[in-house]
Amino acid sequence: MRLGVCYYPEHWPESMWEDDARRMKALGIEQVRIAEFAWSRIEPAPGEYDWGWLDRAIDVLGAAGLKVVMCTPTATPPKWLIDRHPDILPIGADGRPRAFGSRRHYDFSSPSYFEASQRICTAVAERYGRHPAVAYWQTDNEFGCHHTVLSYSPAAVARFREWLKARYRTIDALNDAWGTVFWSMEYRSFDEIDAPVATVTEAHPSHRLDYRRFASDEVARYNRMQVEIIRAHSPGRPVAHNFMQLFTEFDHYKVAADLDVASWDSYPLGALEEQWFAPDVKARWLRSGHPDFASFNHDVYRGMSKLPFWVMEQQPGPVNWAMWNPAPLPGMVRLWSWEAFAHGAGCVSYFRWRQAPFAQEQMHAGLNTPDNRLDVGGNEAAQVADEIRTVLASNGDANAAIRSKVALVYDYEAKWLFEIHPQGADFHYPRFAFEYYSALRALGLDVDVVPVDAPLDGYSLVVVPPLPVVPDDFAVRLARSGAQVVLGPRTGSKTRDVRIPTNLPPGALASVLPARIWRVESMRPNVTEGVRLADSQQASVADGLARHWRDFIDSDAAASLDVRARFADGHPAYVRSGAFHYFASLFDDALTVRLFERIAREAGVTTLQLSDSVRISRRGALTYAFNYGDDTHTLTDVADDAFVIGSRALAPQGVAVYRSR
Amino acid sequence: MRLGVCYYPEHWPESMWEDDARRMKALGIEQVRIAEFAWSRIEPAPGEYDWGWLDRAIDVLGAAGLKVVMCTPTATPPKWLIDRHPDILPIGADGRPRAFGSRRHYDFSSPSYFEASQRICTAVAERYGRHPAVAYWQTDNEFGCHHTVLSYSPAAVARFREWLKARYRTIDALNDAWGTVFWSMEYRSFDEIDAPVATVTEAHPSHRLDYRRFASDEVARYNRMQVEIIRAHSPGRPVAHNFMQLFTEFDHYKVAADLDVASWDSYPLGALEEQWFAPDVKARWLRSGHPDFASFNHDVYRGMSKLPFWVMEQQPGPVNWAMWNPAPLPGMVRLWSWEAFAHGAGCVSYFRWRQAPFAQEQMHAGLNTPDNRLDVGGNEAAQVADEIRTVLASNGDANAAIRSKVALVYDYEAKWLFEIHPQGADFHYPRFAFEYYSALRALGLDVDVVPVDAPLDGYSLVVVPPLPVVPDDFAVRLARSGAQVVLGPRTGSKTRDVRIPTNLPPGALASVLPARIWRVESMRPNVTEGVRLADSQQASVADGLARHWRDFIDSDAAASLDVRARFADGHPAYVRSGAFHYFASLFDDALTVRLFERIAREAGVTTLQLSDSVRISRRGALTYAFNYGDDTHTLTDVADDAFVIGSRALAPQGVAVYRSR
Amino acid sequence: MRLGVCYYPEHWPESMWEDDARRMKALGIEQVRIAEFAWSRIEPAPGEYDWGWLDRAIDVLGAAGLKVVMCTPTATPPKWLIDRHPDILPIGADGRPRAFGSRRHYDFSSPSYFEASQRICTAVAERYGRHPAVAYWQTDNEFGCHHTVLSYSPAAVARFREWLKARYRTIDALNDAWGTVFWSMEYRSFDEIDAPVATVTEAHPSHRLDYRRFASDEVARYNRMQVEIIRAHSPGRPVAHNFMQLFTEFDHYKVAADLDVASWDSYPLGALEEQWFAPDVKARWLRSGHPDFASFNHDVYRGMSKLPFWVMEQQPGPVNWAMWNPAPLPGMVRLWSWEAFAHGAGCVSYFRWRQAPFAQEQMHAGLNTPDNRLDVGGNEAAQVADEIRTVLASNGDANAAIRSKVALVYDYEAKWLFEIHPQGADFHYPRFAFEYYSALRALGLDVDVVPVDAPLDGYSLVVVPPLPVVPDDFAVRLARSGAQVVLGPRTGSKTRDVRIPTNLPPGALASVLPARIWRVESMRPNVTEGVRLADSQQASVADGLARHWRDFIDSDAAASLDVRARFADGHPAYVRSGAFHYFASLFDDALTVRLFERIAREAGVTTLQLSDSVRISRRGALTYAFNYGDDTHTLTDVADDAFVIGSRALAPQGVAVYRSR
Repeated sequence: MRLGVCYYPEHWPESMWEDDARRMKALGIEQVRIAEFAWSRIEPAPGEYDWGWLDRAIDVLGAAGLKVVMCTPTATPPKWLIDRHPDILPIGADGRPRAFGSRRHYDFSSPSYFEASQRICTAVAERYGRHPAVAYWQTDNEFGCHHTVLSYSPAAVARFREWLKARYRTIDALNDAWGTVFWSMEYRSFDEIDAPVATVTEAHPSHRLDYRRFASDEVARYNRMQVEIIRAHSPGRPVAHNFMQLFTEFDHYKVAADLDVASWDSYPLGALEEQWFAPDVKARWLRSGHPDFASFNHDVYRGMSKLPFWVMEQQPGPVNWAMWNPAPLPGMVRLWSWEAFAHGAGCVSYFRWRQAPFAQEQMHAGLNTPDNRLDVGGNEAAQVADEIRTVLASNGDANAAIRSKVALVYDYEAKWLFEIHPQGADFHYPRFAFEYYSALRALGLDVDVVPVDAPLDGYSLVVVPPLPVVPDDFAVRLARSGAQVVLGPRTGSKTRDVRIPTNLPPGALASVLPARIWRVESMRPNVTEGVRLADSQQASVADGLARHWRDFIDSDAAASLDVRARFADGHPAYVRSGAFHYFASLFDDALTVRLFERIAREAGVTTLQLSDSVRISRRGALTYAFNYGDDTHTLTDVADDAFVIGSRALAPQGVAVYRSR
Repeated sequence: MRLGVCYYPEHWPESMWEDDARRMKALGIEQVRIAEFAWSRIEPAPGEYDWGWLDRAIDVLGAAGLKVVMCTPTATPPKWLIDRHPDILPIGADGRPRAFGSRRHYDFSSPSYFEASQRICTAVAERYGRHPAVAYWQTDNEFGCHHTVLSYSPAAVARFREWLKARYRTIDALNDAWGTVFWSMEYRSFDEIDAPVATVTEAHPSHRLDYRRFASDEVARYNRMQVEIIRAHSPGRPVAHNFMQLFTEFDHYKVAADLDVASWDSYPLGALEEQWFAPDVKARWLRSGHPDFASFNHDVYRGMSKLPFWVMEQQPGPVNWAMWNPAPLPGMVRLWSWEAFAHGAGCVSYFRWRQAPFAQEQMHAGLNTPDNRLDVGGNEAAQVADEIRTVLASNGDANAAIRSKVALVYDYEAKWLFEIHPQGADFHYPRFAFEYYSALRALGLDVDVVPVDAPLDGYSLVVVPPLPVVPDDFAVRLARSGAQVVLGPRTGSKTRDVRIPTNLPPGALASVLPARIWRVESMRPNVTEGVRLADSQQASVADGLARHWRDFIDSDAAASLDVRARFADGHPAYVRSGAFHYFASLFDDALTVRLFERIAREAGVTTLQLSDSVRISRRGALTYAFNYGDDTHTLTDVADDAFVIGSRALAPQGVAVYRSR
Repeated sequence: MRLGVCYYPEHWPESMWEDDARRMKALGIEQVRIAEFAWSRIEPAPGEYDWGWLDRAIDVLGAAGLKVVMCTPTATPPKWLIDRHPDILPIGADGRPRAFGSRRHYDFSSPSYFEASQRICTAVAERYGRHPAVAYWQTDNEFGCHHTVLSYSPAAVARFREWLKARYRTIDALNDAWGTVFWSMEYRSFDEIDAPVATVTEAHPSHRLDYRRFASDEVARYNRMQVEIIRAHSPGRPVAHNFMQLFTEFDHYKVAADLDVASWDSYPLGALEEQWFAPDVKARWLRSGHPDFASFNHDVYRGMSKLPFWVMEQQPGPVNWAMWNPAPLPGMVRLWSWEAFAHGAGCVSYFRWRQAPFAQEQMHAGLNTPDNRLDVGGNEAAQVADEIRTVLASNGDANAAIRSKVALVYDYEAKWLFEIHPQGADFHYPRFAFEYYSALRALGLDVDVVPVDAPLDGYSLVVVPPLPVVPDDFAVRLARSGAQVVLGPRTGSKTRDVRIPTNLPPGALASVLPARIWRVESMRPNVTEGVRLADSQQASVADGLARHWRDFIDSDAAASLDVRARFADGHPAYVRSGAFHYFASLFDDALTVRLFERIAREAGVTTLQLSDSVRISRRGALTYAFNYGDDTHTLTDVADDAFVIGSRALAPQGVAVYRSR
């Protein structure tokens, strides 16, 4: 558990650097990320490097006892490089280059940029790889931000063709796999295949999904190149990348596999505004963020990080980039920080040390205001630094690794597939995964978020949000785990080539859940369907509502299943076969929590009934409680002397840490 | 009355074909449409034809006693053809080619594609034109789908200039007709005229309407080329095209004039979701479709078909292409089928035999599921096949032609003109035509939908939704018919060159309706205006509401008119002159029904008062009743022994057929 | 005070001209604007001028005793010119030329067009500059209409680079001013700088604001070229341009500085529909327009006009260009006309004499219908002409200049800056300026709208809507004026280079208002914050609501301020320091009026409490009262014999003119 900060010495007079470093250290900050946007200062003209300022900046930080997270500066190629190699610019879906003048104006498939990146990364890694103050590395910055994973350039298409060749070997195999016979879309050679863009109506879904997979692999390849250069020149220093909150445009598991630290950038208020939440939900959590949103991301990135994950950028106050940008309530910066540690974070690093008074992000708060006074977020960071010392001294095994009883299977291709092939316009995978996660958290459960190929042994409950493509061994691994398994609708509904399984959904899961899905329907937002539990206590009223989607389960197959709930028209809504529970729709929040509670009980997992604003996490021997609401919450079942931080009365925006019973 | 199905042997192993054909026949299917998307299998490489598989498929179908509807495969030119002739691709309004990778990626004006189409049509027609199993033909597939009527290619512009020359002869005549003096848009030669696209503000409305007319004529020319080739090689076989539901981007009358059969593709649930209906209406008819939507299309296409019209594609279950895709209620596939026959259909052909498990439409249901089990729709089709035998045996003259007492004038240019020149943003012609149609149907009336140049003799009531351009002889033909005539607002408001008539609206109709329209106003959606009938029974409350539009009728002219209703501010809302009734606005549904009922009575036409979910049609000596609602409807005034199908108690989603009194 | 009309002799047979001129004169019209779209008739082919028709048209008008407002025809370059110089077409943000076929298809930076404009303006000015009937000139027509201020052409970029060189002199100065070090956006020479368009994420705000300033300066330069040519050839004739209502895409003060008359085109109903007003507000004022909208524009353009401003185009009936186009209530054309005179107009000129029956604007009403009968608007114009005579004869100093006690500071760059750099998505500057104006008008106050560099002496109250950039001397000038000063939120929040001031907001105003703004937040539309006045009479209820935005005022600084209101969470909402009043948010209408009333009282300015539909203006010795509502309003405090027009009972849509007490 430690604090960090993001710092841009190149934005400030050199005369301020020493004082900045001193004040960081005094505040309790231990690591400082630098230089991820500094290419034009490192190499102001082609081949002319200016290391002096950066040498001095690192020396100042090191002299103050701070550890540096050194970045490669590839997120912002300078103008002279673009002018020399215009093919670096990514090509949009409209066929036009995306221009210089902001950031991330590069195409992952551009050979010119790959070469230029190798050169600058090598230069930086050679110079600082063994510098004593440089303790960690970050590759690039926020891969994919601003919709930059996909490019439709000739370079991308050329590499896509190679990617397809490697995957399918023959063009006949591709035609067969995709089913190009439909609409005479058959290809005679890989060289006939273009990017799936600008077609008259929707392009072929298999073509589109492969293009997404290809583009994701390009990100992994580009990151791997950087990691290899860094490792060659900077042995022993962990390499991180800062992923984005709930970002899904590439497969993060594949990129994280090459890293030591998966870190992410946490902006709870900006996320609330920009994500799918309804306007009333956005107003409800306006200045605190949704109680489960940062948690979900913590659990996502913890799962893919070899070392403890970090929050590389923590929102310290209002940001600039959402449609509307409210100010966090007092105490929220502290709460968010502790929530990260409670979920296993090794470091929480604030973005940024001081608000920049110019350029695109000048309205983004820092720990200090532009006139260099400590801001509210800075004061709260100082409080957290103090509290870390208290917690570390509590013998609570505060830095313990986390392993939960509950696993939630989370997948990136699922997002792409449902986006490409929605069948219902609002079938938004991350939302549904989040809603399942949120229901588990409302029951006080700690959750591991895992990929579909993760080992599942040791879990008591495995929850699978809608997962269209399941691996061949998934049923076996689930069954062997001994866990109770909840499967969301549409699970097993597609093959990896985006086809309907020969035996219909749930396809490869039919061996454990013999429920032939013979029909589906998507429901518009103003339509719901009542759901009645088989053991309902209510004579005529529905126990809950189905929304968005319905799988129709064959009634013959259903005869061998335990039908635990039905839709108003009699079709099965929730069926069970042994330890496998299949939800044929997306239920409202209350019903989802109620069903998860029942299944958790069957799994032997103890649950709580938390209000929507209180959340509990456990790490090591300590329990962490957080109050996102407006009213004081009284913690019961905790001994008075168990508190390390806080007390029974958990104030609004309050944090308590106590020894678990 | 017979059933058909759409079938894609190229999607399935040849080993399945015989069983498919046998099961089709056993189900009661008589005709099978094939090959409309099979170009890449018929001609896998330039000039290399592979007829073998298609020969065998047709033989298998023929051997099973099925009749084949053979299609030209021009809706999906293969990749090799596009690569050889990139000018085949249509050019979008953004100036970019619309790419290969889905379907309909061709420009109707492309000389390359015209030539390639001639070649492939000739090849197919030569090979199968006299095949004994081939009984019918279909040209291409769904002309214009995915916004493909308009292209902005150099080829289209070149042909547009020729089209203009033929229409106006001299550039001075064009400048005069359009009024290009406005804003100095005058042309010195036809070669100066471009497509009306990408202009700084709206392009000239006369220019735009002529471009729409031109593009429509291009579709007719392209279809005519195919029909002529087919007729030359396949004498005696009727030629059809499958139009789309309420599709209006080209003049269907002109295309149908070259065909024997006008057929259309009926997807009641997809249409409900995609058309203009308000969200609550979409929820109300979610799984049945709107009670008047399929009917309206039946009556539209019946009117332009030389032989009895067909439903070439009938929705058999959920589809894949709407924003949300609900499942039809049990019974709806049967109801939709009978409704088509009740409106005069010769054939109802289901789309498709078996759901394809791959490519863009894999979520589109068929009569069979992808694992080859008969689906709900398949069972209902079998029931319809049985019932057809019963009805044909009833001596009810079931295949009789239909001729109604009521005609509704329906026009394509009206749609384009109001779209180009709306004056009120929501003045959506097909919606208003549909609302008039629906009001007539609520009165139990059978309706002929006719073009503006149709003979009108024999009708008792002629209803004209807003029709901006009326032919010179329209007033005379209407007057001679002896019918009561209802004219919607904006009727006669423009000349064919998109000008205001010299005498102001209703222009050429002033001879029969001397109502000078000196001003108009459009009303935003949250504004209505009360309407009071001249003989209102209510002292102060409005009898109904005017919406969207108001024509202001000159008070001097109005003095010679019978003012039957006024707006709240005193302006005439409904005036009558002899048999001519002019509505100065679009009234709410209830008021529209009430006025139509009164005028029908004046026309000597008997009406019923049907609930919004029950509909009645008459064909031959039989009456057909349909229940779209959730409650049983009791049919009165029918003798118990009159029922051929069903009974007095018309269940939800139920059908009854009985001998008319 | 006089009336005018816009007339297009080229649209009508020459045989009608004399009668038109005679009827204009008889109606009371004194001036006629012509020829602004007539280039293709003046020069039908390159270099071939046809002056005959225009000579005769001017002679006819002059002979009837009418004064001509002669226009340059540059808003509509003819097709032959575009074909010769395709670089005239502006380039859109999508990189594509905006095509010929409507109007304003020219790039202000195109050298070809600049040269062609010089040529045609010289030709017109030479021919008619000394014609006795030509009394005034208009340059071009509605600069910037249809989003034509900005172009992204190579010509524009080349001129932008020159503009930047002139502004910054060295590239280092530009890099420093903008802060391009952020995201490595540094430039090595001016030639590396492109237009800020098509970037991956938002382009640099300083870059964007400079591009807007540059584009605005291009308009001024283009207009100045025309004015100089006219003045050289037509000495003594005032030169006008017709600006658009609330148009903000260029700095109107800079363009008006080169003119004699600032005129504007008033379409109250079209504006209501197209501007930001909520749907219920649009319905409320559907057929009258918003009571403060035309007034606001009158006051804007009065302030920048050397001679009395004009309404160059007055809506005479329904227009064609809004989404919906209602008809004005009877009396509104008269009311609008008198409102213009009440605000200081020298002329009200109706658009147009007769509705054109062809082309894009055929549904735009005129004083006469297309069949040449006087329309309602024409009759009301005749009434106004009569009433002008009465008013002029009243010894009320009717043509007096207006100078108000209250000034509202209105700025164009503020609009651009908040649009480029919003921080809250709905921070729409013209709306907020209008709401302040409207609150002042509800208090019965006459308002001068002035630029930020206007002399402020003599005002009692100065209201400053959110003004991000303030001149260095603004604080001093405000303080010296002796006025009470209201500053909206975000005032002083940016430097001219779009940076946060070193001392934080209010930046250069801190000398008079020592209120350090250390944080801001924007609020989404479904969020408000209660506001309590320091002297609130209510125990627990809020006195009003804050919306959209909050400035957080440093509590230490606030200690030296008079905190007159607080937000519900205790932060200051309204602080006062001497004569300076700072609003930290945008309050609801009622609270804004209440606070303005209190401050006006402190400023010694007498206020009224007007209902939302009655408005009062004063000019010379006369007071003008207008009733926008549906109910008769009784004027009190007016002697019976004081009325020049009207009486105490001010009917709906009524006008009264009376001698001020």
